Amino acid sequence: MLNFEFKNPTKIIFGKGQIGNLGKEIPKNAKVLMVYGAGSIKSNGIYEQVKKALSDFEVLEFSGIPANPEYEVLMDALKVIKEENITYLLAVGGGSVIDGVKFLSSAALYTGNTPWDILKNSIRTENGLPFGTVLTLPATGSEMNSGAVITRKETGEKLGMGGPGLFPQFSILDPQVVTSIPERQLANGIMDAFSHVLEQYMTYPIGAILQDRIAESIMQTLIEIAPRIMKNTSDYEAAANFMWSCTMALNGLIQKGVPTDWAVHAMGHELTALFGIDHARTLAIIAPSHYYYNFEAKKEKLAQYGERVWDIKTGSTEEKAKAAIEKTVDFFHSLGIDTKLSDYTAAYEGTAERVSQRFTDRGWLGLGEHKTLAPADVEKIIKMSY
Amino acid sequence: MLNFEFKNPTKIIFGKGQIGNLGKEIPKNAKVLMVYGAGSIKSNGIYEQVKKALSDFEVLEFSGIPANPEYEVLMDALKVIKEENITYLLAVGGGSVIDGVKFLSSAALYTGNTPWDILKNSIRTENGLPFGTVLTLPATGSEMNSGAVITRKETGEKLGMGGPGLFPQFSILDPQVVTSIPERQLANGIMDAFSHVLEQYMTYPIGAILQDRIAESIMQTLIEIAPRIMKNTSDYEAAANFMWSCTMALNGLIQKGVPTDWAVHAMGHELTALFGIDHARTLAIIAPSHYYYNFEAKKEKLAQYGERVWDIKTGSTEEKAKAAIEKTVDFFHSLGIDTKLSDYTAAYEGTAERVSQRFTDRGWLGLGEHKTLAPADVEKIIKMSY
Repeated sequence: MLNFEFKNPTKIIFGKGQIGNLGKEIPKNAKVLMVYGAGSIKSNGIYEQVKKALSDFEVLEFSGIPANPEYEVLMDALKVIKEENITYLLAVGGGSVIDGVKFLSSAALYTGNTPWDILKNSIRTENGLPFGTVLTLPATGSEMNSGAVITRKETGEKLGMGGPGLFPQFSILDPQVVTSIPERQLANGIMDAFSHVLEQYMTYPIGAILQDRIAESIMQTLIEIAPRIMKNTSDYEAAANFMWSCTMALNGLIQKGVPTDWAVHAMGHELTALFGIDHARTLAIIAPSHYYYNFEAKKEKLAQYGERVWDIKTGSTEEKAKAAIEKTVDFFHSLGIDTKLSDYTAAYEGTAERVSQRFTDRGWLGLGEHKTLAPADVEKIIKMSY
Repeated sequence: MLNFEFKNPTKIIFGKGQIGNLGKEIPKNAKVLMVYGAGSIKSNGIYEQVKKALSDFEVLEFSGIPANPEYEVLMDALKVIKEENITYLLAVGGGSVIDGVKFLSSAALYTGNTPWDILKNSIRTENGLPFGTVLTLPATGSEMNSGAVITRKETGEKLGMGGPGLFPQFSILDPQVVTSIPERQLANGIMDAFSHVLEQYMTYPIGAILQDRIAESIMQTLIEIAPRIMKNTSDYEAAANFMWSCTMALNGLIQKGVPTDWAVHAMGHELTALFGIDHARTLAIIAPSHYYYNFEAKKEKLAQYGERVWDIKTGSTEEKAKAAIEKTVDFFHSLGIDTKLSDYTAAYEGTAERVSQRFTDRGWLGLGEHKTLAPADVEKIIKMSY
């Protein structure tokens, strides 16, 4: 087990009807900016629940945060925060809205030249404007971590930010919100959470026995609830386990004391940038090829995963490892998620070279848990994903 | 899954050599009271490591906190805190020292009549004097929760206290401290952590799929590392997983969204009070009888536990459940822990009636996850434990 530090101060308020308790979590006399997305919260009843719970506060609204939270839009929200002397932010949405609010939290207190510097110069946020969240779409785990990814269309950049000042003060997780999530978003959420676990788990044995088992627990739970929730979004038990699994997949716990990979995300982001493919689906395209390509380095963990998560009890380490990748692909297919780039675009030729070139241009030192994957490896992995 | 709230702001600093980083966690200019037990930290090198890491601070010491942190001793420490204007507390020890420091943290800021009221009147501690811990004995989980149990010999009372003000600001977990732990304490630590999980898990199915699996993960890990660490306390990998499992067993996570039992602890405490039997061992005496006595209510979870934790794949629910209890008893024995009261005392006759009478006198409404166990049930369970 590697040395680690772990601290996560976010208060989780989980369960039926918890949105009604929102008002207790926000300081009296706060001037609140409620931030949300395209407005689906107005058709599923969440907007009314939030407004009712905030009836004792002065509340302004800022809507229209897009799926990949966009810098220019956020800069408009920042203007409102400053002009209106907002003292508290409330994200009502999924990972994009929450990530956007994290940027706003940091930018509102940033005293430097331009808030883009926070992203460009990787400035760690020690203190942000306080904020809470009401989660409407389980997937990214942003509701209980201190990271965010922000997109700037103007320059084609997608950059990460973080720091201890960016933990939500509270997050309200009412599994009933799952009822109104469209099938495609549901599948994406399961896929996203599952990938988060894989990126922190599918490396090499390091003797972190407990962390491995907790990671496996999250994957087993997602596999168990996936068909239930895909069939019936009103299955509260499945929804609750889905929601809590997504949070636990990326709240920092399972990454502590272990090496992590994240190469699948790095490559997947490029496919979103080039083709606009949903983030979660890019992970399903890349992951299988990544595991086959790095088979020798990952086969022990792949076999352990096969044994424990997929109940593959017979065969050699290699056979179990291969069977585990096949089971994983089958699982993605069961969610209605295609696993080849050619399933998403006819114009896939040349993608491998383009992505590889992008990595070369950025001078990235290497991807994966050993930081050894070079642009040439990226090219091969993406070709395997056609 | 039941509704829940979860917040745990303690910073964990885990791994080899982390005691050296202690100074970074304490505010500059703090006047520190270092609190420890009988002095074993002076023979195992931890005392020197802590003192060295605190070389930039004004540090006073208070030693002699006994195994069940004793009110009168703590009141002496409280006098030092007030007379010397201590601003920060540092617990260096196991659960008893940490619990004692939690009491001191609360009592130092308590403005009422006498600090015993905090325990007697169950006064929740919203704010305490800030404190950190250096854990020297994995077992109780006190290093990452906000609860404490304090004993008052004078009146024969043993009472609990807690509140959000009692989370340690940080806890340093260096698994190397395990090297010098005597076998009896090691066995007690494993037993204690395992029991903590059982009390939060062995109830009835509530559809908390993820929580169940995480609880099972902790038990599986403890079962895996127990023989390794009992054989060789210098096995760092086993020590690290032992230490992290003890913390995760009682940091609040696995109890969220599920019913909990804690009747085994309630009955076990009485055996410690009557016979001075180690806390952990009283749990081993009570648990098997408790599970046999409440077999109908708990058989589904017992069978699930048998299947997943002990790999019992055949038989009816009842057969699996019974086999699971037997496996559990075998596990306790493998730690060198006896599971019958008569193994510890020849004077066991009448214990059941005495304990039952104590519960009656206190007017307790009922024990267990359904709050239905009456003093008459307690009497029967303890008789089964003779």
